[in-house]
Amino acid sequence: MAASQTRVAVAGVSGYTGGELVRLLLEHPDVELSFLGARGGEERSLSEVQPHLAGSTDLPLREIDAAAIAGSAEVVFLSLPHGVSSGLVLGLLEAGLRVIDLAGDFRLRADDYPEWYGFDHPAPALLAEAAYGLPELFAPEIAAARLVANPGCYPTAVVLPLAPLLKAELVRSGPIMVDGKSGLSGAGRSLTDPMMFATSSESVRPYRFPKHQHTPEMERGLALAIGTDAPAVSFVPHLVPAVRGVLCTSYVPLASGSTTTRELTECVAAAYAGAPFVRVLDAREMSDTKRVRGANTIEIQAVADPRTGSAIVVGALDNLVKGAAGQAIQNMNLMLGSDQAAGLSAAGVYP
Amino acid sequence: MAASQTRVAVAGVSGYTGGELVRLLLEHPDVELSFLGARGGEERSLSEVQPHLAGSTDLPLREIDAAAIAGSAEVVFLSLPHGVSSGLVLGLLEAGLRVIDLAGDFRLRADDYPEWYGFDHPAPALLAEAAYGLPELFAPEIAAARLVANPGCYPTAVVLPLAPLLKAELVRSGPIMVDGKSGLSGAGRSLTDPMMFATSSESVRPYRFPKHQHTPEMERGLALAIGTDAPAVSFVPHLVPAVRGVLCTSYVPLASGSTTTRELTECVAAAYAGAPFVRVLDAREMSDTKRVRGANTIEIQAVADPRTGSAIVVGALDNLVKGAAGQAIQNMNLMLGSDQAAGLSAAGVYP
Amino acid sequence: MAASQTRVAVAGVSGYTGGELVRLLLEHPDVELSFLGARGGEERSLSEVQPHLAGSTDLPLREIDAAAIAGSAEVVFLSLPHGVSSGLVLGLLEAGLRVIDLAGDFRLRADDYPEWYGFDHPAPALLAEAAYGLPELFAPEIAAARLVANPGCYPTAVVLPLAPLLKAELVRSGPIMVDGKSGLSGAGRSLTDPMMFATSSESVRPYRFPKHQHTPEMERGLALAIGTDAPAVSFVPHLVPAVRGVLCTSYVPLASGSTTTRELTECVAAAYAGAPFVRVLDAREMSDTKRVRGANTIEIQAVADPRTGSAIVVGALDNLVKGAAGQAIQNMNLMLGSDQAAGLSAAGVYP
Amino acid sequence: MAASQTRVAVAGVSGYTGGELVRLLLEHPDVELSFLGARGGEERSLSEVQPHLAGSTDLPLREIDAAAIAGSAEVVFLSLPHGVSSGLVLGLLEAGLRVIDLAGDFRLRADDYPEWYGFDHPAPALLAEAAYGLPELFAPEIAAARLVANPGCYPTAVVLPLAPLLKAELVRSGPIMVDGKSGLSGAGRSLTDPMMFATSSESVRPYRFPKHQHTPEMERGLALAIGTDAPAVSFVPHLVPAVRGVLCTSYVPLASGSTTTRELTECVAAAYAGAPFVRVLDAREMSDTKRVRGANTIEIQAVADPRTGSAIVVGALDNLVKGAAGQAIQNMNLMLGSDQAAGLSAAGVYP
Repeated sequence: MAASQTRVAVAGVSGYTGGELVRLLLEHPDVELSFLGARGGEERSLSEVQPHLAGSTDLPLREIDAAAIAGSAEVVFLSLPHGVSSGLVLGLLEAGLRVIDLAGDFRLRADDYPEWYGFDHPAPALLAEAAYGLPELFAPEIAAARLVANPGCYPTAVVLPLAPLLKAELVRSGPIMVDGKSGLSGAGRSLTDPMMFATSSESVRPYRFPKHQHTPEMERGLALAIGTDAPAVSFVPHLVPAVRGVLCTSYVPLASGSTTTRELTECVAAAYAGAPFVRVLDAREMSDTKRVRGANTIEIQAVADPRTGSAIVVGALDNLVKGAAGQAIQNMNLMLGSDQAAGLSAAGVYP
Repeated sequence: MAASQTRVAVAGVSGYTGGELVRLLLEHPDVELSFLGARGGEERSLSEVQPHLAGSTDLPLREIDAAAIAGSAEVVFLSLPHGVSSGLVLGLLEAGLRVIDLAGDFRLRADDYPEWYGFDHPAPALLAEAAYGLPELFAPEIAAARLVANPGCYPTAVVLPLAPLLKAELVRSGPIMVDGKSGLSGAGRSLTDPMMFATSSESVRPYRFPKHQHTPEMERGLALAIGTDAPAVSFVPHLVPAVRGVLCTSYVPLASGSTTTRELTECVAAAYAGAPFVRVLDAREMSDTKRVRGANTIEIQAVADPRTGSAIVVGALDNLVKGAAGQAIQNMNLMLGSDQAAGLSAAGVYP
Repeated sequence: MAASQTRVAVAGVSGYTGGELVRLLLEHPDVELSFLGARGGEERSLSEVQPHLAGSTDLPLREIDAAAIAGSAEVVFLSLPHGVSSGLVLGLLEAGLRVIDLAGDFRLRADDYPEWYGFDHPAPALLAEAAYGLPELFAPEIAAARLVANPGCYPTAVVLPLAPLLKAELVRSGPIMVDGKSGLSGAGRSLTDPMMFATSSESVRPYRFPKHQHTPEMERGLALAIGTDAPAVSFVPHLVPAVRGVLCTSYVPLASGSTTTRELTECVAAAYAGAPFVRVLDAREMSDTKRVRGANTIEIQAVADPRTGSAIVVGALDNLVKGAAGQAIQNMNLMLGSDQAAGLSAAGVYP
Repeated sequence: MAASQTRVAVAGVSGYTGGELVRLLLEHPDVELSFLGARGGEERSLSEVQPHLAGSTDLPLREIDAAAIAGSAEVVFLSLPHGVSSGLVLGLLEAGLRVIDLAGDFRLRADDYPEWYGFDHPAPALLAEAAYGLPELFAPEIAAARLVANPGCYPTAVVLPLAPLLKAELVRSGPIMVDGKSGLSGAGRSLTDPMMFATSSESVRPYRFPKHQHTPEMERGLALAIGTDAPAVSFVPHLVPAVRGVLCTSYVPLASGSTTTRELTECVAAAYAGAPFVRVLDAREMSDTKRVRGANTIEIQAVADPRTGSAIVVGALDNLVKGAAGQAIQNMNLMLGSDQAAGLSAAGVYP
């Protein structure tokens, strides 16, 4: 590897997101993967927890320890259960690392944690410092940040499509009804009956509504983007029989009943002109998670329904890439001053 | 078979709904299946178009002809493309048959056909006569009707859950945002790229919105149920990688911000107490299309979201059974004065 | 229910087979379901373990206890983990019940249990008494039996197709190479990583070979059918991303190189003429598990490959119906002197 | 792009293999994609036929014409229906291009075409010249060739695993029973009922046996590898409900009944030591197509079954990568003298 490569750690390689981080970082041209952390550490090997990566690296799995990480890497990705990373971050920052947290620990305001995550935030001072890692909206803040809160998959699929329309005041701030559909990998790697093949195949079902923790994240992400009070969001996530893929359909009032699909589409397209991972569909196309599987791309579609005075705004992405590991790497690229697209693909693996 | 069995015809056995009608009617205790119609008729056999039914009947396929049907049967199910059955019905009624139409030809007002179905209705006089076949809401009209318009799968999953809440004025009439998810069989048996396995697996995608023809049917079905003007519906259907199953999530304003999930649930449960095919979930349960696959059951869930002043109302069913063939047979049972549950199962084939 | 109905118990309703037994028995015209047993018993309800059956019966779940079962039922189905039922059967038989065991406990010779199931058989005297429950081959023995060993799903898909060909000496006794493919429900309802949707979707994989316990069952089943020494079988099972369905492809030497597909097909068709649940395909058709899903039917296809002097013999069935619960009910029908097809369907739920 | 990049054409970009070629070549560091050919040419755009590649290249689609290709590229991949490429190749070779053909046109001996492909070979003189493109077995021939016959997906999954065992005489030459399982993309992008989602989901079925055209290709590939007469193969392919993935299970007689799994495994591992895309499983592991999805890796597993004197040898790969486009690029890399792994990934996209 080149001398200029950045040494990178991943803490939490056992889950789906951790596996995707390792896969993508191993092929990243500017990165030397230098630390793989997992709870239980050296008792297991990477190929035991991620069999598709067998043979791809000789790195051992190590216990997750801030000092060990700090001794091995300049940048660290934290892919840990909610509530764990917030206890680790301060030590990592003090050791000079730059941190990208893929859990929910730095996405909300401190006040929101008891209600939505069920714990008091252990490091509220860091919340204000953390940049919210949507590169298409907050690139300067991300580039300058020590700590990036990598967004949730559903909020990414909602905030990126809606932000330009709210900013341009083509739509009103709500209430916004968000209907999310996700493949099973979005629910994590847990051995429970609802995650089984026999249970999930041919099953379409809502879950954990109206109290899913991505609800306040959508509201806060939109508020950050538009610089005013948060709109109110009602969010119902659903599981569908796919492995990857999140598609969110948002229903929001049009500011003017005469607004057309073309105006909505052009507004979003203008906002993201030049963004390498945003694809705005024209009015004749329909978005599809399949097309972006394995890619860091989000597809956006905005349609006016004059009969009800509504805009229907769709975002589609791969929850493990643009919704997690890929976006985290895009954030790292910005933090390192590299091409934000380095190591990432815009084309899906199809079919 | 018993002398008291009713002789029944199915016109249109080549599609998924036609196949399901034949399968269910063959096992119906009160029915003698006496006529199977398909375009192209005698050139093919039933087992060529419905291989799972090989060996189950010796009936030949016959050309679809009103006189031949009238000579063979007392009741006829029309499972034909939209726009075809409306040309056949008058002759069948005049010959004394009772007709259950599974297409969209008798579900709307005449004025709606040019915009939503793309044709002028050929028999507008019959529209007023047709009963809208939701047995849980319109049993007396169905029992007395010569002609029943069997509802669409999506409207069934929307009108049954919402009607009691609108009638009780627990929710306001809109606009109602309806987010539909359907398995691929709901889109019919057409050889197109979007229907292929390689295209559909891992794909979540909206389609044909905001102009899906079930939109005005939902509005009219709700208007019929509540006896006032139709609420305005915005409807976005999505295809998910399942064969069977429709789940609609409707977002509707609460009349009072203090209405609770329990009140909504009790309202729906009271409305359908004793209905053999309605299962109202309590507040801790989540609906699931998987549980009703192969069954004539609809699962209904109604949840208050006080943060946005909304009710979120979910209906889940098997699009080929409660959403088509099963509900059609339930309507036939009512028309014949039989037990409405005869020949139908309330328990799904699981897993 | 009618006075003539047989009172039936199911011990073990928590798994997929147990759920299918209850579903089918609830709709069986000659049966009164009188006892539902589950480990842990009254702490749970049926709808907690089998949510698709919610509302279909008021029977409570009870602890599995021979005396309680004997007090409630005339026939009992044991759907329990391997090694459990063999400890229960003697008490049930002594109490006068007729027993159908769906585990592997009575399918082999006593000598085989240590090697293939890992335990010494606790009731070897009963092994000789048990009838092997393939109704198409052993109807008289089943009708007369107190105890029926219900066959495994894979052996059913191998023994029924091969037995007539071996009996007629159109094929030689081996070695027979059996390649099995199964949906995930065939592997049971266990919360392990290989059973998860994200793991199983898009996955084709062999498992537990060459030591799967259905290997000696195939050998013994064939030996029973042809009345001579068992042929030697090499068996490799595979899991494919389906819920239901077993298809076994068996490769066996032709006795004569000039034997044709037609001769093989006619031999099997003649052997099963009149059998309500056997469908022998003609030479132009290809078998398909999809067509028999939810049905008690087995599809059989026999093809000669003169290039290698082999017969290729395929059996396809629904592992939870003809491969488990449906065949068990077919056996019960024979034991009760009823129509063997009572309560069972020959047509699949399609698509 | 760098001046040293090779200019590459793809003729036939409309199918699944063509799309995969374009996706991989666009990210290949040593390649400039310079020509995209499709029948119908300029009437369509790449994003119409391969929507996941929208925005990834500005290249137009052009009519497939040897002169136009020769004017644009140094290397050409032909991804065309069987029987088409054999008419194009001579012109391309004479124009100085190097050609990789992904159809079956150069894989067999001329005598085999009428029986297995249904046409007389139009260019038999070129058959002897073509290298059979299995890089792990024939790298020198491929590096020197003007024309490479890229192998079929099934033969790759059979020849690579079996060749070392036959060469070492650990197994005998047959007859070899090959049981293949493939995802739907292996059957091509054709709009037929068996390819539909509703037809394929939950379906396991054999097809086109015993006359699949990969049968003689397996025999010839093995003959080329071991340098003696071809063994006789009996091949039964099956379709399973996956998009990608081929797994072949081959049953072959052991030369000695005392040969162990370890001996078989070590033989294969030694043969492919250092091969970047071969992963030989140890005796405790089970192969899985899922792990190699999107990767150019083949997993190989070899197990002795002493009960029947058989070796059971499994090969698992992604039919569109190692079974088609990826292997074709590996061949190109060898032809260009590059690292054979350039532009290819050994790690799958998981889950």
